[in-house]
Amino acid sequence: MEFTVQQVADLLQGKVEGDNTIKVSTLAKIEEAKQGALAFLSNTKYEPFLYNTQASAVIVAHNLELKQPVTAALIRVEDPYTSFSTLLQYYQTAVIASKAGAEEPCFIGQGSVVGDNYYRGAFSYIGANCKIGENVKIFPQVYIGDNVTIGDNTTIFAGVKLYTNTVVGNNCTIHSGAVLGSDGFGWAPQADGTYKAVPQIGNVVLEDDISIGANTTIDCATMGSTIIRKGSKIDNLVQIAHNVEIGQHTVVASQTGISGSTKIGNNCVIAGQVGIVGHITIADKTTIGAQSGVSKSVKESGNIIQGSPAFDYKQNLRAMTVFRKLPELQRELELLKEKV
Amino acid sequence: MEFTVQQVADLLQGKVEGDNTIKVSTLAKIEEAKQGALAFLSNTKYEPFLYNTQASAVIVAHNLELKQPVTAALIRVEDPYTSFSTLLQYYQTAVIASKAGAEEPCFIGQGSVVGDNYYRGAFSYIGANCKIGENVKIFPQVYIGDNVTIGDNTTIFAGVKLYTNTVVGNNCTIHSGAVLGSDGFGWAPQADGTYKAVPQIGNVVLEDDISIGANTTIDCATMGSTIIRKGSKIDNLVQIAHNVEIGQHTVVASQTGISGSTKIGNNCVIAGQVGIVGHITIADKTTIGAQSGVSKSVKESGNIIQGSPAFDYKQNLRAMTVFRKLPELQRELELLKEKV
Amino acid sequence: MEFTVQQVADLLQGKVEGDNTIKVSTLAKIEEAKQGALAFLSNTKYEPFLYNTQASAVIVAHNLELKQPVTAALIRVEDPYTSFSTLLQYYQTAVIASKAGAEEPCFIGQGSVVGDNYYRGAFSYIGANCKIGENVKIFPQVYIGDNVTIGDNTTIFAGVKLYTNTVVGNNCTIHSGAVLGSDGFGWAPQADGTYKAVPQIGNVVLEDDISIGANTTIDCATMGSTIIRKGSKIDNLVQIAHNVEIGQHTVVASQTGISGSTKIGNNCVIAGQVGIVGHITIADKTTIGAQSGVSKSVKESGNIIQGSPAFDYKQNLRAMTVFRKLPELQRELELLKEKV
Repeated sequence: MEFTVQQVADLLQGKVEGDNTIKVSTLAKIEEAKQGALAFLSNTKYEPFLYNTQASAVIVAHNLELKQPVTAALIRVEDPYTSFSTLLQYYQTAVIASKAGAEEPCFIGQGSVVGDNYYRGAFSYIGANCKIGENVKIFPQVYIGDNVTIGDNTTIFAGVKLYTNTVVGNNCTIHSGAVLGSDGFGWAPQADGTYKAVPQIGNVVLEDDISIGANTTIDCATMGSTIIRKGSKIDNLVQIAHNVEIGQHTVVASQTGISGSTKIGNNCVIAGQVGIVGHITIADKTTIGAQSGVSKSVKESGNIIQGSPAFDYKQNLRAMTVFRKLPELQRELELLKEKV
Repeated sequence: MEFTVQQVADLLQGKVEGDNTIKVSTLAKIEEAKQGALAFLSNTKYEPFLYNTQASAVIVAHNLELKQPVTAALIRVEDPYTSFSTLLQYYQTAVIASKAGAEEPCFIGQGSVVGDNYYRGAFSYIGANCKIGENVKIFPQVYIGDNVTIGDNTTIFAGVKLYTNTVVGNNCTIHSGAVLGSDGFGWAPQADGTYKAVPQIGNVVLEDDISIGANTTIDCATMGSTIIRKGSKIDNLVQIAHNVEIGQHTVVASQTGISGSTKIGNNCVIAGQVGIVGHITIADKTTIGAQSGVSKSVKESGNIIQGSPAFDYKQNLRAMTVFRKLPELQRELELLKEKV
Repeated sequence: MEFTVQQVADLLQGKVEGDNTIKVSTLAKIEEAKQGALAFLSNTKYEPFLYNTQASAVIVAHNLELKQPVTAALIRVEDPYTSFSTLLQYYQTAVIASKAGAEEPCFIGQGSVVGDNYYRGAFSYIGANCKIGENVKIFPQVYIGDNVTIGDNTTIFAGVKLYTNTVVGNNCTIHSGAVLGSDGFGWAPQADGTYKAVPQIGNVVLEDDISIGANTTIDCATMGSTIIRKGSKIDNLVQIAHNVEIGQHTVVASQTGISGSTKIGNNCVIAGQVGIVGHITIADKTTIGAQSGVSKSVKESGNIIQGSPAFDYKQNLRAMTVFRKLPELQRELELLKEKV
């Protein structure tokens, strides 16, 4: 996509200084921008970059007074940071929105219904009896099993796999390689040392405004649903086991694993590589530090925990400080024993 | 799939109480069941749910005496729990078994042979010279490289990737996104600081009755085979490196990583997010706690270990208890030093 | 692929002893080799295997004196180990090189250019305006978004997903299920407890000679590029967040996660299951032990760190040694307190 500086200025209700026919095709930081890029200057700390940037155009404030000549075209606006954020959003949305229609070959099973304004990439597969909303983008090589429901304005990137009966809400984004609905890991030990599969016939439900990261796995419930509630954001390579429930507006960072039947509250922040055991409850607004191992329920909301096993964040920090000095502590104890 | 209550009762050799023409299409817990669902009542603790469940039908014991009127149809059987488990198994198997034939387009290379009663989903790929057994279900977008062998009654879900020469036994299940046979991570450091690839020409062998979780990765051996033995169950996002051998009936939970050439015994239980270094041996019936880091061989069978690095589970628990109190310990030592 | 012993001997400039028409089709260790395999004997410790191996042929040194009769054909060379390594390399390259042409169906978008001597597997997808170099192997079900650039001699295995604008250099290998260019995990918390997506419009750049493991995820930069520099090797299931930069010839083992905007130096060795926080810098030649959690920058090069949080490797080892004895330490302190 290429735009003239004037087109960008019109969009931002800004005023051009310099050549308004210059074309820009990407967005960049002022200190890294190359020809063809549009940058912005908000923090005056970065003003020196303005005078030697290779950017083709720069968004600046109405009231900025130039101290040296500038080769880039300028777009004068009220608040350069907000204007640039608007462009970023616009750019990202435009890239996805430009996808439309059904590329061939793609597969659609009997009884499935797809809403208006969809995109279905080549080699994508939609099973039987699916209901897919409006303005849904299904990228190439996506697999959608039978009886899947997908809401409006949802984007499913290349190679996502949704097992039979999965439910996805409105305004969701699922990144490549994510798997929703694989069997929960339920094995009944037998007397002879072998294992018998516990049938897993439930599904996965994503409510609205959910984001699922690349190669994340969410198992179906044994019965009922594994549920991610409205507005929660899950990063890459996260494992969510059968019958887990994650509350609203909770953020789970990469490589974290949540074991079966655990319930996570609303507005929690769970850092990367955390492990949480099964069948516990985490209260609302809990923050869990990176690499923590949570072995029991967190009952009061608003706590910060850390460590493996995890306990109060500050206590853990103090214990870790002493941990590093353990050899000295041991020596001091030995000396003391000799003295006494 | 929809069944009448009478059809279900016939299957379970049970007796209907109420309207035997009511239709059920799913299975649910009695406390969560909605219209159209079939539930069961085994533990009398749940009996109060029976009198206001929305389930269309409930499986109950022959000898259950009703204390209030029930709107759901009842199916009377000897042992409701066993009957319900039978239905769960039946339901899950039926969903997969209903898949049959070859959807188009799918790709099959020269010299490959597929047994009877198969399912091959659209956009699935079978390379050259493969031998695929009877009653094998290959879901859409599966990749099977050249010279791959797959036994009878095995199910391979959407998007699984099996590299060239992989061997999969009978009655195996491989979940979406799992990768078997990618190159082992072998790099010979060179004098100039660069790395040269150690060729990885071996394969991956799954014996019978194996389950592999979603997005799990199993590297091929440098030479010979990376082997998972009969009956073992591997969860999601597990990493199994080149030349690893996992014994029979061993369970490995999510996000665990096993480094190159390590041999795991039979009937081990390995919890989630465990890391095991390369070139060691873990004895039969070893249990390894979550997030443990195993840095040396476990020689005697039947032990439970925990921690990073891992040692005896109980010792680790005791040490962790003191760890939390380290700041106090340090203070007490300081006080004592002053006194002496 | 099948070769006569004479063909192999010619390739290695060796001399055949025995039947030079015998055919070999695989390579194996002398202690594991079966009929049809070619093995080698370098370390004389393994010489006893030579006299009862089932291998069809064995590469041995010119000066080896046989102590018993051998049934396998022998290929005499100067240095059996080097000769065998040459064959391994040759074998692995040959398997990939044998793939050629475009299998159907595959998808290629408008304006995309593919160099000579390519392989494009069935169900692979190349978007619009891509530039793909010479001798590139694109396996089945690969997804390549719009505006992607791929250098010469690069191999992309089945099911890899490259988002729009990804740049891959020469001589790279990307294993199945890897995802490059998914959105960075950037969420701006709003006053009402919800999150707003920070647009992620950058890309991923792999320089030359990079290897990416199976199911690894590399997010695109918010703006600019997430970069892996020349010669670095990334294992399976690794997470690399937005705007991360990994230097040259750095090795990252499985299941490690690197958070946003962190810069890793050249020639580092990062073990498995390591977590590194965002916005820090790791100096050249740093070694990080398995399961470490790195919470601050490493400023001097050449250090070895370990632990969560990580500090000097030897100090950590000493502290861990005392950690195991904490219960005893506590008892001794109690005894001492009583005495004083």
